[in-house]
Amino acid sequence: MKTHDKLYQATLEWLEERGINIEDIAELAFNLQKPYVLELTKEDASESVNAVLKKREVQNAILTGIFLDKAAENGYPEEPLLSQLVNDNSLFGIDEVLALSVVNIYGFIGLTNFGYLDKEKPGIIKELNNNNKVNTFLDDLIAAIAAAAASRIAHKTKDNGNPNIDNDNFL
Amino acid sequence: MKTHDKLYQATLEWLEERGINIEDIAELAFNLQKPYVLELTKEDASESVNAVLKKREVQNAILTGIFLDKAAENGYPEEPLLSQLVNDNSLFGIDEVLALSVVNIYGFIGLTNFGYLDKEKPGIIKELNNNNKVNTFLDDLIAAIAAAAASRIAHKTKDNGNPNIDNDNFL
Amino acid sequence: MKTHDKLYQATLEWLEERGINIEDIAELAFNLQKPYVLELTKEDASESVNAVLKKREVQNAILTGIFLDKAAENGYPEEPLLSQLVNDNSLFGIDEVLALSVVNIYGFIGLTNFGYLDKEKPGIIKELNNNNKVNTFLDDLIAAIAAAAASRIAHKTKDNGNPNIDNDNFL
Amino acid sequence: MKTHDKLYQATLEWLEERGINIEDIAELAFNLQKPYVLELTKEDASESVNAVLKKREVQNAILTGIFLDKAAENGYPEEPLLSQLVNDNSLFGIDEVLALSVVNIYGFIGLTNFGYLDKEKPGIIKELNNNNKVNTFLDDLIAAIAAAAASRIAHKTKDNGNPNIDNDNFL
Repeated sequence: MKTHDKLYQATLEWLEERGINIEDIAELAFNLQKPYVLELTKEDASESVNAVLKKREVQNAILTGIFLDKAAENGYPEEPLLSQLVNDNSLFGIDEVLALSVVNIYGFIGLTNFGYLDKEKPGIIKELNNNNKVNTFLDDLIAAIAAAAASRIAHKTKDNGNPNIDNDNFL
Repeated sequence: MKTHDKLYQATLEWLEERGINIEDIAELAFNLQKPYVLELTKEDASESVNAVLKKREVQNAILTGIFLDKAAENGYPEEPLLSQLVNDNSLFGIDEVLALSVVNIYGFIGLTNFGYLDKEKPGIIKELNNNNKVNTFLDDLIAAIAAAAASRIAHKTKDNGNPNIDNDNFL
Repeated sequence: MKTHDKLYQATLEWLEERGINIEDIAELAFNLQKPYVLELTKEDASESVNAVLKKREVQNAILTGIFLDKAAENGYPEEPLLSQLVNDNSLFGIDEVLALSVVNIYGFIGLTNFGYLDKEKPGIIKELNNNNKVNTFLDDLIAAIAAAAASRIAHKTKDNGNPNIDNDNFL
Repeated sequence: MKTHDKLYQATLEWLEERGINIEDIAELAFNLQKPYVLELTKEDASESVNAVLKKREVQNAILTGIFLDKAAENGYPEEPLLSQLVNDNSLFGIDEVLALSVVNIYGFIGLTNFGYLDKEKPGIIKELNNNNKVNTFLDDLIAAIAAAAASRIAHKTKDNGNPNIDNDNFL
């Protein structure tokens, strides 16, 4: 298996192990874009989330973020880093930095949707904030993946008037 | 007058000419942080907005953005750039890029509040979207300034338990 | 002609009007990657530069930057913005911000090559710094396009062992 | 001890444990700015590096990066993340993302110097690449701290004509 395939498979598995599947993220992206793209289906949204998850930068950000969350859960980092990670300190900022590297894969137009999701915490993001695990990185990463998928849908729709037709120049 | 003072004065004047004063932006920052900082006053928020506006990177972003908005109003850029600017095309992305350079002056923790403001468009941001001028850059910049000011308040409060006490290491 | 095609055509024309063609930029990308990819040809490098120029975010950054350079040449912006643009003030920073939006289209691995080109100013970048036009934005944008093209070559080579075989998941 | 003081102390200690002291980084910043600021001393450069290290975003990036390097050394992350970290895979990209969050604390003008240092690897950066530890994150972070310190010197000098006089609006 090529490195890229291994990274993609591991990304899906690590997300699943943390309770996240593609449909959860697709739901967020669907709700963001549905008001603007009337013919959008949940399948379109899932397809866009999957396309985002095939990007290497995204895979590396997810694997690194989930590793940090799990390491914090296990008390592995020394203080004072451990407390920063466990408490999801709002001033920590490194979770937003990793998320930024995901959001911008289809340009900075994704920043707005990322911030909105991170503030409002709809759907799976709220669940991540309420379960008893450390999800300091994961909640931001999920918001970022959904925002990037929404950007991809916006680009495709604008270029073709139809989210089902691919435009490989951008996507 | 030193370059920096000239840039600061021009920033205030150019904003005012476009219908924006510090209190409008402070209102946005105040509403973002009030739930977390009970003792926050509107004066604290104004002081933080002013501190943001004293940063050179912020001044340069504002002057450049307002110049681009006004140039578009006057039909100065050739096509196809003109249409991108006049229509505030949601895929343009350069307005978000300029805003990013403002948001991150107190770290990437400001991304969330920026995205929220840009999506919800409270207060002066809604007015900018509804007046008959070109505000492609200005609306994002105002959201970014307010988000940066909110980050500054968060840093100050966390470090001192009080938004009135300065902590010059960060701010 | 679709919006995207118009933006692409305009990007090539505006670059040419400022004295830049794809081969000039490809030369920079070729020199960056040749030490690591022995079989790389100048045609591969040109193909990657062209792929970068087909991205909408890149097109918007280039059109905006060239407009700002030309506006400054014509004395259009009011002071104190005009002096910042004409003098390519090293503290201005907005040129680097626009360049960042180009560099990161294949991930942040392009930052290193961008910085190197912007510091060393090889080939066409040096010429831009020495001609009698305002190229405050253009020199950074050219460095950014070349760095992004080099990142694309690196991704393709790593995934396939060959820069000629496309891997559409990333590129 | 306040949180901020603990983070600062830990940052210095973790850096020292990885073989880095402030003077090593100051040497890099000094060499970057000396050609432009003739009166610059090594003490000025050390003072600027120290100011950078007092920023919370910088502290968090350094602690997170060093934790990841050490975790990789100890074989703690599962595959396929472990190989990405141990081999300092040039396509990984997350090390550059953390570095970006440090570089930009004085604006994006630091991008150029960061890229230059990361490519040329002078002084302590070369040593980090040649010792038998995992320094995937640390080498980029050191380049970023030096680049940020150089930006700070540039801002101070431009504003005051003298790197010794502080200008608290920017710094």
